[in-house]
Amino acid sequence: MSLPYTILILFIFSTSSSYLIPLAHSKIARLGISSKTLKNEPDGSTQKVDESNLKMYYFNQTLDHFTFTPESYMTFQQRYAIDSTHWGGAKANAPILAFLGEESSLDSDLAAIGFLRDNGPRLNALLVYIEHRYYGETMPFGSAEEALKNASTLGYLNAAQALADYAAILLHVKEKYSTNHSPIIVIGGSYGGMLAAWFRLKYPHIALGALASSAPLLYFEDTRPKFGYYYIVTKVFKEASERCYNTIRNSWIEIDRVAGKPNGLSILSKQFKTCAPLNGSFDIKDFLDTIYAEAVQYNRGPNFWVAKVCNAINANPPNRRYNLLDRIFAGVVALVGNRTCYDTKMFAQPTNNNIAWRWQVCKFYF
Amino acid sequence: MSLPYTILILFIFSTSSSYLIPLAHSKIARLGISSKTLKNEPDGSTQKVDESNLKMYYFNQTLDHFTFTPESYMTFQQRYAIDSTHWGGAKANAPILAFLGEESSLDSDLAAIGFLRDNGPRLNALLVYIEHRYYGETMPFGSAEEALKNASTLGYLNAAQALADYAAILLHVKEKYSTNHSPIIVIGGSYGGMLAAWFRLKYPHIALGALASSAPLLYFEDTRPKFGYYYIVTKVFKEASERCYNTIRNSWIEIDRVAGKPNGLSILSKQFKTCAPLNGSFDIKDFLDTIYAEAVQYNRGPNFWVAKVCNAINANPPNRRYNLLDRIFAGVVALVGNRTCYDTKMFAQPTNNNIAWRWQVCKFYF
Repeated sequence: MSLPYTILILFIFSTSSSYLIPLAHSKIARLGISSKTLKNEPDGSTQKVDESNLKMYYFNQTLDHFTFTPESYMTFQQRYAIDSTHWGGAKANAPILAFLGEESSLDSDLAAIGFLRDNGPRLNALLVYIEHRYYGETMPFGSAEEALKNASTLGYLNAAQALADYAAILLHVKEKYSTNHSPIIVIGGSYGGMLAAWFRLKYPHIALGALASSAPLLYFEDTRPKFGYYYIVTKVFKEASERCYNTIRNSWIEIDRVAGKPNGLSILSKQFKTCAPLNGSFDIKDFLDTIYAEAVQYNRGPNFWVAKVCNAINANPPNRRYNLLDRIFAGVVALVGNRTCYDTKMFAQPTNNNIAWRWQVCKFYF
Repeated sequence: MSLPYTILILFIFSTSSSYLIPLAHSKIARLGISSKTLKNEPDGSTQKVDESNLKMYYFNQTLDHFTFTPESYMTFQQRYAIDSTHWGGAKANAPILAFLGEESSLDSDLAAIGFLRDNGPRLNALLVYIEHRYYGETMPFGSAEEALKNASTLGYLNAAQALADYAAILLHVKEKYSTNHSPIIVIGGSYGGMLAAWFRLKYPHIALGALASSAPLLYFEDTRPKFGYYYIVTKVFKEASERCYNTIRNSWIEIDRVAGKPNGLSILSKQFKTCAPLNGSFDIKDFLDTIYAEAVQYNRGPNFWVAKVCNAINANPPNRRYNLLDRIFAGVVALVGNRTCYDTKMFAQPTNNNIAWRWQVCKFYF
C-alpha cells in the first residue's frame, strides 16, 4: 500500500510566490471534516447533537495486522459507536452505513457528521461510527503519552493498518448482528474519505460501496496542479472580492517592510495584538495564511468565512483612516473573534491529534 | 489481508477415516508448482533449461511495508531475473509477464515454469521472475540461519508483505524500462497463483491481469469440501484402479496389525527397508500417504505417477506370491526408485524452504 503523497509534501515544502498566499514552512496538510480552529457555529456555540441513540463499544484490536513478530500481537481498545434505532434487521438484509473516522476524535466526528443520521432512517440502516487508531480514545500502548511518544510506538500508525482495523470491526459487527448479506457502505470525509475509497478497493468483500466526501484522492504526484491548494485559496478570495484579494496580496510585502524597520517586530506585535513577542515576520504570515486557508476550506453555512473576512477587510470605518495592516487585522478579528490578544501559534498547538497527524503526514503516506 | 486459512488447518488437524488415506499429523499443506520429492523427469535426470537469456538482479527491498517503527526500515536483497530478448519495447507498450515466486527458490521455478518462455516471444513480452522473500537467495537478516531462526525474524514472512515486495519490484522494473503503459500480467502457480490473484485485487493499478494457475483460492472456510484434499487423492487412485485402491485401503489396517505383533515394528522396518528403526506404525503411514498424495498432485507427463504406482501394486510376479505389504512396497519402489534403504522422514527434512513454509502455514494466513 505505498501511495503517492505529494499532497503533503506540497503543503510543507512549496515555496511562496507573490501570486499566491505564501505557504507556511511548518504547515501540516489541512485535512479533516471540520475546522479545528474556526468555530463552526454562530456566536461560538458548539453544535449540539442528540447522541442518546448511540451505544459506545470497545473492540480488542490488533496492533499490527501485517507482521507476526511477537510484539505485533499486542492489542488496544478501539472505540466505535452503533445506532441501531432504525435498523431494519438481518432478515431484511438492511444496509449498514459505516463511518470511517479520520484524524480526529470520534466525539467531534459524531457532532460534525450528518450523513448517517440524515439517511439512516430512510434506509433502515444500522449506523456504525469507528474511531481511527491513535485519535481520541483509541490509543494503543495504554495512553496518548505512550502512543505518541516516539517512532517505536507511532510506527503502527498508518492508513494500511487503519483500513485493516476497520475491516476487523466491520466483520465483527456483521457477526454480532448475524447479518451475512447486509450491504456495507463505508463513508468518510477528507482523509477519511480517502480511507473509504481505499477500503472499497482493498476490501471489496466487505464493503459494497464507498462515499468518499471531499477526499483529495487524485491530489497526488503528477495528477495535482502545482501549488494547487493555495491556488484555490487565492482564487476563492479573488472571486469573493477583488479588492479584498489585492489588500491581502499587498499585505505580505507590507508586513516584511514593517518588520524590516528598527523595532519593526514589536510594531507588528502591537498591530496584531500578539500574545507573545514575534520571532520574525513569518510568525504573522503563518498565522494569516492559515486563517485564510481555513476560511476557504470551511467556507460553508452558516458562517461563510470568506465573505466575513473580506467584509471586514474592505470596511472603512468613518472615524479614522485604516492603514493596510489595520484592515488585515480587522479580518483576523472577524474570523477569530474579539480577543485581548492573539496567539499566532494557535494553529500549531501540539495537541494529541496534531502529533498523530504530523506523524502521518511526515511519514509521507496515507 | 486476513484471509481464511482452513486449507492448512485441514491438512494438519483432520482426523483420518477408513474411507480416506489417513492424514499425517505433522503434514504441511502441499502447495508448490513442482514436486519437491518426486523426480520430474524419467530416469531421474534434472530438467535442463537454457537460462542464457536471463539476467539476475537484486533489489533493495524493505523488510516491513506496513509499519514504520525504526526496525521496519531494514532492507534485504531480493533476487529477480529478467529476460528481455523478446521485449517489444516501451514505445510499443509491449507487455510485461511477471512470474510471482512461491515457496521455493527461483532456481527451481526457472526450471519448472514454461508459461513465460512459451508465450513471451509471441507477445514480445518482457519476462520477469521474482523470488519470494525467505526462499532461495532472498533471505532477510543476511542469512537463512538468521532469517529462519525465530518468530522475531520470521515475523516478516507473510503474503501481504510478499505482495508489497512484488509491487515495489514491478514499479522499479517499469521505471527501469521507462514504460508507463506496458500492461503487466502477473503469473503464479499454486500458492504463487493465489499471490497472483490477490495481487491483481490489491494492486489493480500495477497489474492489468493475473494468471492464477492451480491456485486453491476458494479452498477456504465454508467453501471447501470436508477432507477435500485427501478425498481427491483417494478418488484419483480409485479411478485409476479399483484393485489398487482396495489394496491401499486395506494396507492401513494390515500395517497396524503387523505393528501390533511382538517385534512388529522391526518386521515393518525390514518389509519397507527403512534406513532407521521405526518409532511407530505412523512413521510408515506418514511416508506412504505423502507418496500417494504427491503422486496425485504431480500426476502429469511424462511420469503419470498414479499409473506407475498402481501398476507396481497390481503386479503379481510369477516366481513368488506377494503379500499385501509386498505390493505396497513395490509401489514405493516404483515411485521413489530402487534404493538400498528408504528414509521415511525424507519428506520432512527441515530444509530452509520447509522451515519457511511451515511458518506460513502455521501462522494460518497467506
